[in-house]
Amino acid sequence: MRISIIIILLLSAAVLKAQHVNPAEQLKKLGIELPAPSKPVANYVKWVRTGNLIFLSGHGPCNFDGIPKGQLGDELTVEQGYTAARQAGICLIATLNDAVDGDLTKVVRIVRVFGLVSSTDEFYDHPKVMNGCSDLMVEVFGDKGKHVRAAVGTNVLPFNIPVEIEMVVEVKD
Amino acid sequence: MRISIIIILLLSAAVLKAQHVNPAEQLKKLGIELPAPSKPVANYVKWVRTGNLIFLSGHGPCNFDGIPKGQLGDELTVEQGYTAARQAGICLIATLNDAVDGDLTKVVRIVRVFGLVSSTDEFYDHPKVMNGCSDLMVEVFGDKGKHVRAAVGTNVLPFNIPVEIEMVVEVKD
Amino acid sequence: MRISIIIILLLSAAVLKAQHVNPAEQLKKLGIELPAPSKPVANYVKWVRTGNLIFLSGHGPCNFDGIPKGQLGDELTVEQGYTAARQAGICLIATLNDAVDGDLTKVVRIVRVFGLVSSTDEFYDHPKVMNGCSDLMVEVFGDKGKHVRAAVGTNVLPFNIPVEIEMVVEVKD
Repeated sequence: MRISIIIILLLSAAVLKAQHVNPAEQLKKLGIELPAPSKPVANYVKWVRTGNLIFLSGHGPCNFDGIPKGQLGDELTVEQGYTAARQAGICLIATLNDAVDGDLTKVVRIVRVFGLVSSTDEFYDHPKVMNGCSDLMVEVFGDKGKHVRAAVGTNVLPFNIPVEIEMVVEVKD
Repeated sequence: MRISIIIILLLSAAVLKAQHVNPAEQLKKLGIELPAPSKPVANYVKWVRTGNLIFLSGHGPCNFDGIPKGQLGDELTVEQGYTAARQAGICLIATLNDAVDGDLTKVVRIVRVFGLVSSTDEFYDHPKVMNGCSDLMVEVFGDKGKHVRAAVGTNVLPFNIPVEIEMVVEVKD
Repeated sequence: MRISIIIILLLSAAVLKAQHVNPAEQLKKLGIELPAPSKPVANYVKWVRTGNLIFLSGHGPCNFDGIPKGQLGDELTVEQGYTAARQAGICLIATLNDAVDGDLTKVVRIVRVFGLVSSTDEFYDHPKVMNGCSDLMVEVFGDKGKHVRAAVGTNVLPFNIPVEIEMVVEVKD
């Protein structure tokens, strides 16, 4: 009996903690410094707000040295793919931070994450790669970071990057 | 003259019928039992509601025995692809049913269906495959099931499944 | 000092011009005649409005003679891909025009453009291809045409078309 009460209290504390996550503080704890949001090189923009939704352009890993290029299942391991997806996620948060004028507490919910993973025909572990982005979103935004997701394959991405990720985010008025 | 009146009456009846479709009854008539909504295996969820929109994760065929794996144009026929897309559609409806607390009459409109079909470079009939999902939505939701769609190819999908489908749905307050 | 004032005035004029673009007039200036919106051949539709958002189906180049088929990096040059993306964009505007009852001034913002480019594993210039659509949107809608974008590769598209493009648009009440 007493043990179940303790478990409930611990779970409640976990839930409350998740709900009161401060994204900027979480980034600090994780040792993540947001890069300057990258500029698009053509007639498009990195984010558009419509109503309470912010749509973000497809992002690959940005401003990071040593991100390898190529296909999963060929040049790249799952671990390298996971790291690339996490770094694309950091670039998405940098753009999102720009969209909310530097106040990430305005984020109500990471709604949708759509990730394309460059891979050979015999590579089937796209979800393990995209966990790099999904894990980051929950580390930074807590329960608000839990999103719907598609993690799919493709034979090739621009500039031979291993992952490209789109996102939709709900924000406060 | 009389024939055209009869035709108009028949068409009106068809339209009225389409508008008053009860999705749960339609599922019964079609002999479809919704599977328990599958659980995600990572830091994402199967659906997120924002305003009146429900975004659903990418779904493949779930909980079905005998769904073959592989590429269209190689191991799989268009008929097998159509069946796989229909079964992914059933899984999407199971998740949607969970999102609307079991009351599918809350669905105002199936808005967007985005389907990726694993295929060889020489396979061009992705729309015929995705009809498996589109036909199901209209059978179950009537005119409310008519959606915008993209049916595209890819070289490979997670776990070597033949189709993966995302959906956006408008629901009542 | 005087020069900077002149520059500011010129920039302001450019901004004002961009804000007051009339899409129908721009189409005329560009010599673009919108084709009749193409009909879907299955249980889906070309556009759905939900709230102030219009979702458009995946469009390829429509009603155009001489659009070549195949993959970028193999049969097709970047220039041919750019032209195909521009013509898919014209088809998207034709559908959008239908959705707003022929009054394109109702467009508040081209929100999202998602473009798949059929290509070999060694082709990395998908953004240059998708510029064909992005440039068109800004030529026709001015600043309202600036969208978020993903420009990605795939091994094959329906009917062997070189590009397929989805769009989300915000419109007035």
